[in-house]
Amino acid sequence: MAEEFHVDAYKVEGKVDYDKFAERFGLTLLDGKTRARLEKLGGSLHFMIKRNIFYAQRELGWMLDEYEKGNRFYIYTGIAPSGSMTVGHLIPFLMTLWLQKAFGAEVYIQIPDEEKFLAKKDPALTLERIHELAYDDALNIIALGFDPKKTKIFFDTEYASVLYKQAVRVAKHITFSTVKDAMGFTNEDNIGKIFYTSMQAVPAFLKSVEEGHNVPCLIPLAIDQDVHFRVARDVITKLGYYKPAILYAKFLPAFDGTSKASASDPTKTIYLSDSHEEVRKKVNKMLTGQQDTAELQKKYGGDPEKCVVCQYFKYLFEPDDKKLEAIFKAERDGTVLAGEHKKALADAINKYLDEHRKKKEALKGKLDSFILRA
Amino acid sequence: MAEEFHVDAYKVEGKVDYDKFAERFGLTLLDGKTRARLEKLGGSLHFMIKRNIFYAQRELGWMLDEYEKGNRFYIYTGIAPSGSMTVGHLIPFLMTLWLQKAFGAEVYIQIPDEEKFLAKKDPALTLERIHELAYDDALNIIALGFDPKKTKIFFDTEYASVLYKQAVRVAKHITFSTVKDAMGFTNEDNIGKIFYTSMQAVPAFLKSVEEGHNVPCLIPLAIDQDVHFRVARDVITKLGYYKPAILYAKFLPAFDGTSKASASDPTKTIYLSDSHEEVRKKVNKMLTGQQDTAELQKKYGGDPEKCVVCQYFKYLFEPDDKKLEAIFKAERDGTVLAGEHKKALADAINKYLDEHRKKKEALKGKLDSFILRA
Repeated sequence: MAEEFHVDAYKVEGKVDYDKFAERFGLTLLDGKTRARLEKLGGSLHFMIKRNIFYAQRELGWMLDEYEKGNRFYIYTGIAPSGSMTVGHLIPFLMTLWLQKAFGAEVYIQIPDEEKFLAKKDPALTLERIHELAYDDALNIIALGFDPKKTKIFFDTEYASVLYKQAVRVAKHITFSTVKDAMGFTNEDNIGKIFYTSMQAVPAFLKSVEEGHNVPCLIPLAIDQDVHFRVARDVITKLGYYKPAILYAKFLPAFDGTSKASASDPTKTIYLSDSHEEVRKKVNKMLTGQQDTAELQKKYGGDPEKCVVCQYFKYLFEPDDKKLEAIFKAERDGTVLAGEHKKALADAINKYLDEHRKKKEALKGKLDSFILRA
Repeated sequence: MAEEFHVDAYKVEGKVDYDKFAERFGLTLLDGKTRARLEKLGGSLHFMIKRNIFYAQRELGWMLDEYEKGNRFYIYTGIAPSGSMTVGHLIPFLMTLWLQKAFGAEVYIQIPDEEKFLAKKDPALTLERIHELAYDDALNIIALGFDPKKTKIFFDTEYASVLYKQAVRVAKHITFSTVKDAMGFTNEDNIGKIFYTSMQAVPAFLKSVEEGHNVPCLIPLAIDQDVHFRVARDVITKLGYYKPAILYAKFLPAFDGTSKASASDPTKTIYLSDSHEEVRKKVNKMLTGQQDTAELQKKYGGDPEKCVVCQYFKYLFEPDDKKLEAIFKAERDGTVLAGEHKKALADAINKYLDEHRKKKEALKGKLDSFILRA
């Protein structure tokens, strides 16, 4: 029987069963005890953890043990530029921001400006174009409110005199067989794409290299990026460093309710750069959980779990749990009309994006102080 | 039928037929006309070209046309550190030195300090150890007399913020199939070794990137390195740069007369760091072209082409053609005793190495001005 779903860094297919993904690859689901521990140590709990959007982990218990002993962790996250950032891309960064505030953690942000160049065939996606996108991504990220004293951003091609040396150490322990199995590569894949996973592994131990002693690392990521660290985790310990802890997010649903919003199809995702009108049009395309007719809807009510509008509120645009519950209830009871429901989401997104763009504009001259250069 | 010999960057097997190598891979043998042209434009002709040690080329005629039009070429060469430099390693560097003097060419020297780390299993060959060897290699190279104003040396891991970006552009056009076929890689080779050929391609167009317009490049190399450029030549033109011109050297023969002195077996090669006594012992192990008995030797004479002692004089240690002819004649006529013959070579090598080490010592503080850093 064919796999019912497939998730790797280059492909997400089928309807993802998040519990099965966790089981298949040995992730531990987040439990009440771990949530309580995060809340106690962090002083609060991010709504994405409460709502099980970040739903699984590796090594998190160990990392919190270390934290309690005074061995503070740093955070590694990143984004591979290929177009404007989407609202879905915000999920790991907002988690990272909360972790920075709650745990005082330093943040390393890798912007692999070679990854999509190597992986995509689009001739318009030159390294020069990606470099522009990379700077825009970096600006979008700092606009979320990262602490300039504790946040370092680096671009792979610019920072390669630090990264490449370490990537070579990783690469020595990874065969083509391994990446072929893990990522579905064939002999016709290019040798840059084949090597790339070594570059993505490096920031998971880079602070330990810099400091000359082991520093725990936490990586918040969406599950499609896990494959890189499945390949690299054993290598990292062979090199003498701690395995990174990982916190796993589900995907922001696509407009039609399938597993993942596509970042590369402009009609199927909301970009941080979208106008009010574009947002409104896109929200109007979202599947709701409502029944086919008003009669059925009155009788059975809607299903907020299936309703993409509800899910957008849940994932990103309604941090207040009580307000979210009211939105879900209205959907469930069938008391909200689809149009009104969608208008509320479009308004919330547009308000969010307006504020975001204002912050971004204000930070334009300040980006350079975040960038690490060799 | 199995191939009667095999040459790639990782393996030299069997007795190399240099003419067949040229035919198989489409090199053009150096002819009298080209030699005369080199002599006319360069004002002299290096003995390694006269003696057909550098015996074949690609694109050399085109490059000399460009030179005559005023479009001066630069030279790219290099060495991958894995131990002390050997006398065999001097061959491309001495040619490069002559080209720099004769044509006023700028020289780019790549020291890929990751290549042997990725290719060899020796646990003592750490990146740190290779870095020490790399500095020693660089010092050995500048001691040959390179012009500090026209010579740039760079180490891959240190200069990666320039090299990696360009290597990624190369890598995008090379599939695993291609390097698998060209270099005999298997699925069990590591992904760093698989990527590496992209890094070796970069200096062949790096000056064109720096200058913002195309600059012809000439690469003097021993034939085992050709495989990297066979893979990269088409890519380089796809990126919009000139194909590099290449000048091909034969291998310094091994002590037993087989094709290539092994750089990694200390009993089978002469290092620049060898003592007088070590040189003497090693020269004593060399095969001569002499007959099995004094009687046969008197009757038939020796064969200087088979005599490794004669070949060492020819390749490196007797630049004077008349003196070399006298050495060959004595061997041919059977008038030289093996002991005397070997003593003369050992003395010549020791004299050369003494002078080399003196120059090296004097340059110790001056290396840094040759090194390119990002």
